Amino acid sequence: MTRKIGILGGTGPEGSGLAYRWAKAGLEIVIGSRDAVRASETAAQLKSKIGPSARIEGADNASAVSQAQIVVLTVPFTGSAPLLKQLKNSWKSDQIVIDTTVPLAATIGGAATRVIGVWQGSAAEHTRELLPREIPLASALQNLGAELLAGDAPVDCDVLVCSDDEKAKQAATELVEKIPGARALNGGKLENARIVESITALLIGLNIRYKVHSAGIRFTGLPSRPTS
Amino acid sequence: MTRKIGILGGTGPEGSGLAYRWAKAGLEIVIGSRDAVRASETAAQLKSKIGPSARIEGADNASAVSQAQIVVLTVPFTGSAPLLKQLKNSWKSDQIVIDTTVPLAATIGGAATRVIGVWQGSAAEHTRELLPREIPLASALQNLGAELLAGDAPVDCDVLVCSDDEKAKQAATELVEKIPGARALNGGKLENARIVESITALLIGLNIRYKVHSAGIRFTGLPSRPTS
Repeated sequence: MTRKIGILGGTGPEGSGLAYRWAKAGLEIVIGSRDAVRASETAAQLKSKIGPSARIEGADNASAVSQAQIVVLTVPFTGSAPLLKQLKNSWKSDQIVIDTTVPLAATIGGAATRVIGVWQGSAAEHTRELLPREIPLASALQNLGAELLAGDAPVDCDVLVCSDDEKAKQAATELVEKIPGARALNGGKLENARIVESITALLIGLNIRYKVHSAGIRFTGLPSRPTS
Repeated sequence: MTRKIGILGGTGPEGSGLAYRWAKAGLEIVIGSRDAVRASETAAQLKSKIGPSARIEGADNASAVSQAQIVVLTVPFTGSAPLLKQLKNSWKSDQIVIDTTVPLAATIGGAATRVIGVWQGSAAEHTRELLPREIPLASALQNLGAELLAGDAPVDCDVLVCSDDEKAKQAATELVEKIPGARALNGGKLENARIVESITALLIGLNIRYKVHSAGIRFTGLPSRPTS
């Protein structure tokens, strides 16, 4: 895979965790942020953590989209619609979008152990409505905690990839499997993102009740085995 | 634990699977059904499968409730409200109810890979509203497939127990851990049942896409280990 990955909201913990894992795996990353300076700072920090061979840079969100073949959304849910509206005319038809966002109630001042009801059914379907029809979209990676991603240990987690587009599902699956330990599973249609997103709230509740930081999920009884 | 367990809807695959595992573990079971004859037939079948020491009998649902200290609801979601209304005056204050039901869209002729929206938030909260206030309720066991329960192998599954009542949570946890391989986890408040219930629809979708019959779920990154 030689495609450049743009990570919108990539200065946040989830986005920078993904940038870290993928740059470490040799992928070319552009971190997007409202603030290009902050994006470049995050890119420089990650580069110094990984080493000089890391191909990672920062840009404002629109510029990150213009450079990337795959665009990964990692902004807080309330930032998602304003950003997608701003980017309305930035898309090219060969791009693919991967949505990792979760409509946690924390985004409106509530608990991170709850999700808010999204009219479309999920953050991913909300994103679908705000993207041009011709841009393929997959949802994935919602259940991989930022603390796990920031570390170097293999993650003990499965990642459900939901999409109505095979190309997007394939691209997301390949990206998931660049993260040591992560197993990508076919989560079915994009509409199933509503279940996957809510699992994040459940995992946050488990973290709180069990006093841990990185509860994850594995599915059993399936034919394929974890990739590491 | 010397308490008798009443399993309402216990002639169905989920209920009879639970009856099988619990009777095999030495618990005293009464299978409840609309039809006392069918309940007794199922009880006899399970007894012949387990052996003469199994303490398992059948009764109509109201009679099962009158005998049991713990009542487990395993009816299809559409049968739940009529049954609970019928049982309105059957409860005694020292009883505990465990709800295993899931509002699968299949119950209204839709797909088993989707849940329907329940006004109260979940089947469990719907049950809460139809039970007398003083009867403690926990939700659990929604994600353990009937095929797994019908077998003899340890299940490779965690079970989230959600409740607003510590006594009910404890009773459900003890029952879960009578099933070899099952690990009970504290799922928090009863309201979280909405997430746990929807995971059943996700597991059914994984069964279909991966051509298996018993996809299950484990949580990683937690301090305690599975019980077997």
